[in-house]
Amino acid sequence: MGYVKWSYSVLEHFCHDVFRAFGFDETQSKEIEDVLLTADLFGIESHGMQRMVRYHKGIEKGTIHPLAKPEVVFETPVSAVIDGHNGMGQLISIYAMKKAIEKAKTSGIGMVSVRNSNHFGIAGYYAKMASDEGLLGMACTNSEAIMVPTFGKKAMLGSNPIAVAMPAEPYPFLFDCSTTVVTRGKLEMYNKMEKPLPEGWALDKDGKESTDAPDVLSNIVAKRGGGIMPLGGNKEVNGSHKGYGYGMLCELFSSILSQGVTSDKCCTFKDKTGICHGFIAVNPAIFGNPEEIKRHFSEYLEALRESPKADGAERIYTHGEKEVLAKKDRLENGIQVNDNTMAELANLCEYLKLDFNSYFKGYQLQKDSKFFEGNY
Amino acid sequence: MGYVKWSYSVLEHFCHDVFRAFGFDETQSKEIEDVLLTADLFGIESHGMQRMVRYHKGIEKGTIHPLAKPEVVFETPVSAVIDGHNGMGQLISIYAMKKAIEKAKTSGIGMVSVRNSNHFGIAGYYAKMASDEGLLGMACTNSEAIMVPTFGKKAMLGSNPIAVAMPAEPYPFLFDCSTTVVTRGKLEMYNKMEKPLPEGWALDKDGKESTDAPDVLSNIVAKRGGGIMPLGGNKEVNGSHKGYGYGMLCELFSSILSQGVTSDKCCTFKDKTGICHGFIAVNPAIFGNPEEIKRHFSEYLEALRESPKADGAERIYTHGEKEVLAKKDRLENGIQVNDNTMAELANLCEYLKLDFNSYFKGYQLQKDSKFFEGNY
Repeated sequence: MGYVKWSYSVLEHFCHDVFRAFGFDETQSKEIEDVLLTADLFGIESHGMQRMVRYHKGIEKGTIHPLAKPEVVFETPVSAVIDGHNGMGQLISIYAMKKAIEKAKTSGIGMVSVRNSNHFGIAGYYAKMASDEGLLGMACTNSEAIMVPTFGKKAMLGSNPIAVAMPAEPYPFLFDCSTTVVTRGKLEMYNKMEKPLPEGWALDKDGKESTDAPDVLSNIVAKRGGGIMPLGGNKEVNGSHKGYGYGMLCELFSSILSQGVTSDKCCTFKDKTGICHGFIAVNPAIFGNPEEIKRHFSEYLEALRESPKADGAERIYTHGEKEVLAKKDRLENGIQVNDNTMAELANLCEYLKLDFNSYFKGYQLQKDSKFFEGNY
Repeated sequence: MGYVKWSYSVLEHFCHDVFRAFGFDETQSKEIEDVLLTADLFGIESHGMQRMVRYHKGIEKGTIHPLAKPEVVFETPVSAVIDGHNGMGQLISIYAMKKAIEKAKTSGIGMVSVRNSNHFGIAGYYAKMASDEGLLGMACTNSEAIMVPTFGKKAMLGSNPIAVAMPAEPYPFLFDCSTTVVTRGKLEMYNKMEKPLPEGWALDKDGKESTDAPDVLSNIVAKRGGGIMPLGGNKEVNGSHKGYGYGMLCELFSSILSQGVTSDKCCTFKDKTGICHGFIAVNPAIFGNPEEIKRHFSEYLEALRESPKADGAERIYTHGEKEVLAKKDRLENGIQVNDNTMAELANLCEYLKLDFNSYFKGYQLQKDSKFFEGNY
């Protein structure tokens, strides 16, 4: 499998036309493409152009309703519950995080829980919306069940990422991680490379550890059992119950407080996924001088980066640093898209009657490109 | 090393007299002993009677100031910053969580960040204070540096536990875990048993994986380098950066928002530890009918417990279940205290001029009991 590089503007132009063709207006299209391309700029390739197929298939199948509008169904000065009515996850989530930010600016804290949404892309995008406004931000989402609880053999939680962002110098703290040991995207990568999975990642249909990527993935798609381990693996001795617990916290702020669909039932419906999100924004000014808090935090982050390295290690990162480095690189050197994804984009162009070659000039589709068999 | 069992009332009587002798009043003594003995009842032996020596030594050395009173130094309707003035961690924390609960009841959410406190025992105690009142509760604390950040060799974060509790039937959800793969207490247990550490737990002074408990512990005490890995180990492939990130979230809500002492500097002072905490209480009623939310959550917890077990596994737990089972057992069958801890309690009685034998009738101190060499 090969890669091709495209400039940010080529991909932006393409995405914009795609979402306009799906029926989204100018503003909506810009919002969706910004979430998608930020993932690619941050080096989180699994959640950028690679995921376009998921939105394509979701709209085609009818689990994403492009014309739906999010509705506030419960509200207080510090909170809201939003019903997404199965619209596009990115649009619902930007709306919801804006509401959390507005509440944090007027009341100090805003907590918003969302039900009946769809995949929202990278959680970090929404957490960063808050830190861009000088606030502490949190975003999380549940999703189709893929995490097997400690001692179980059936996936009952999603990859359930939690992201937290906080203003700092020279760049914000941005933590954005699934609560599984890895995401499904990583398993798909190993599958495409035809390599065995690293130990401590996945379980077969009987709940036993497995390094067989095609088997694990096909079991997940067919819901035969097995899945990905929580952060900490599948044994208590390495903290499996902790990763499982963080997955539960994600569920709490998304599907529980909104009274939405829990991960064990997400993506089992014909006309919706039922995916739920949680968003929190906190104004640091409710704890003191925000500039002093920011300085205090920045000093600690600097101390971490400057602390002694393990033998053989070159650098200690703080969270959000890699994203800043990746963005600089991608804007200068282009965004890598793999040949399989290019085939998916060609298929999308056919569906929407867009001219693939007018966007991706000179690119030849690879004959051996395969579509990944997934649930969208 | 052997064990002896005592009834709850024997230990309660002993603890009460100890804290009265240290100068705490009736109410204060009851508060401290309840936090301590709840750890033993919950089966978290490392944080119960075993930790008495830490409070004894802290008061003796002057890092815990028994007469100090917590002071609110910043406050809004949804938040507060408290300076603990280096008092007893349990008293400061009960005071702080009560304030968060009060704010959650009037404003929907209460967030309290605390600086200049001391070890507060189990984080879960304070989270549960909120769930006992029908609220979602969160508690976290930083502590003496023991977690080595990914690619580092010097401990820069504490074991940084995060606890979250939420009302549910038949018992509340109660998640309470360090963000390191294990706590120092577990290393101490392996040291006492003279067994090698499990793989994936600890690092030597050069940042290389080590299973040598005495070496790792003596390096920690002497601050020569090394320590415990974050949840997820010391490699990105198993999610080391995730555990390190959760440790950072703990730091954010404790030492950063309160502008207190970060873990890398905690316990390096003569007259204080500088330990910081964070407490959050959220009223589920700001999201809808609390009873419906509770029912929805309880159903999901039940589905998790009833989901198919891995081959060879007998039971899937939800967080907080083991604590309920342990409490029932300890109240019926007594609380186990090891012989080394008994020697520490005898030493404490000598210091406070209390009659050890009047509490622990018929117990013979073991001649080979050793005190653990630690930093208190």
